[in-house]
Amino acid sequence: MTVEVKALAFDVFGTVVDWRGSIIKMGPAFGATHDFTVDWADFAAAWRAEYHPSMERVRSGEIGFVKLDVLHRVNLEKILQDFGITGLSDEALGDFNRMWHRLDPWPDVVAGLARLKTKYILATLSNGNVSLMVDMAKRAGLPWDVILGAEIAGNYKPQPEVYQNAADVLDLAPAQMMMVAAHNGDLVAASGVGLRTAFVTRPNEYGPGQSTDLNADNDYDVMAKDFIDLAAQLGT
Amino acid sequence: MTVEVKALAFDVFGTVVDWRGSIIKMGPAFGATHDFTVDWADFAAAWRAEYHPSMERVRSGEIGFVKLDVLHRVNLEKILQDFGITGLSDEALGDFNRMWHRLDPWPDVVAGLARLKTKYILATLSNGNVSLMVDMAKRAGLPWDVILGAEIAGNYKPQPEVYQNAADVLDLAPAQMMMVAAHNGDLVAASGVGLRTAFVTRPNEYGPGQSTDLNADNDYDVMAKDFIDLAAQLGT
Repeated sequence: MTVEVKALAFDVFGTVVDWRGSIIKMGPAFGATHDFTVDWADFAAAWRAEYHPSMERVRSGEIGFVKLDVLHRVNLEKILQDFGITGLSDEALGDFNRMWHRLDPWPDVVAGLARLKTKYILATLSNGNVSLMVDMAKRAGLPWDVILGAEIAGNYKPQPEVYQNAADVLDLAPAQMMMVAAHNGDLVAASGVGLRTAFVTRPNEYGPGQSTDLNADNDYDVMAKDFIDLAAQLGT
Repeated sequence: MTVEVKALAFDVFGTVVDWRGSIIKMGPAFGATHDFTVDWADFAAAWRAEYHPSMERVRSGEIGFVKLDVLHRVNLEKILQDFGITGLSDEALGDFNRMWHRLDPWPDVVAGLARLKTKYILATLSNGNVSLMVDMAKRAGLPWDVILGAEIAGNYKPQPEVYQNAADVLDLAPAQMMMVAAHNGDLVAASGVGLRTAFVTRPNEYGPGQSTDLNADNDYDVMAKDFIDLAAQLGT
């Protein structure tokens, strides 16, 4: 018996929005305002490289749960040192950090989500905090029905409880929810909790040299080349 | 110095949706399917009368937090006994209980929210659980940016922590958030935490004999006759 999928749960960074391209695009104006130059592709990659290690401190129990904005800020201050950039005010650092609230979606996203929304509950299931998701969605026109994920669950993916929390909050069995992600690890973790899975290819997330997540490593329920293709395969 | 309001936080039952009229409208078909008749205005009033006492069990610490759907179900089974209605299956009781997921908005709501959404973050700050809010919003076309309130905070209004949680999750100072409600008690509690306040008149929430909340009992920041008036007063 096939259980009907009622909700789609979306990974956001990389799957919905192009964090790397957006930071490369926003960076130069910020640098000009604050009188520094840097290779923004290197800077974006370095900032993102701190992402998983910083969340691991929460997942391992070393520190209690804090919002991703807090981790991003700690990571930002660290890599600014590595890049030799000094003297930014607290306000400038806050503005810099909120670049993550202003990321642009991949070009297929808004049209794909509009179609998917006609049939499914659209939930974010991201490690990004709620205010980050809300700011991003309002700016980019992402029509989420509900913001779930790390801050609501009190832990970071890929901890199983984060996926389970999303199903519980929506009163759904895990099999009534499908995780949509461009990352094999996220889908493997979601599948471990019983969610269905859709892999979306984002071959440029890490730029020209991308070597991981170029292909689906497992036999997911759906494999789509973008959100338009996903919408079509899911009958919307 | 006036702090700019960034988000509007909405009470939902009574302020956004007409719970009483909706239950009166849905009831007869449900009764016909399950072979009973009842005065649906009386039934709606009796069901709602159990609402605050049931939440008080959570607020007082007598029981741990449970979703409003759970309280509504307990209350439903109690008043079915009072009305002498027996023999409904578990599935029928679940369907009956989910009437609260299918409430209709007041006629001004969808147009008013569409205007308000252009300038403000629109958050639910209801005692209803997340799945209830999501189902209601998808059915009625309520364009929330984020679902907050009791289930996210782990307690029920008017406990101060529920209002504070909404501000915290959105990274706002309480004064950057305005509570919108048709109930004086809700606004007084929100104001106690530092939120700004908007009273919207809903003179038919309790039907022809309504005696409470017909007028604003305090000097709120905004007093509006409906959501269209609210949108105009807030510059949208």
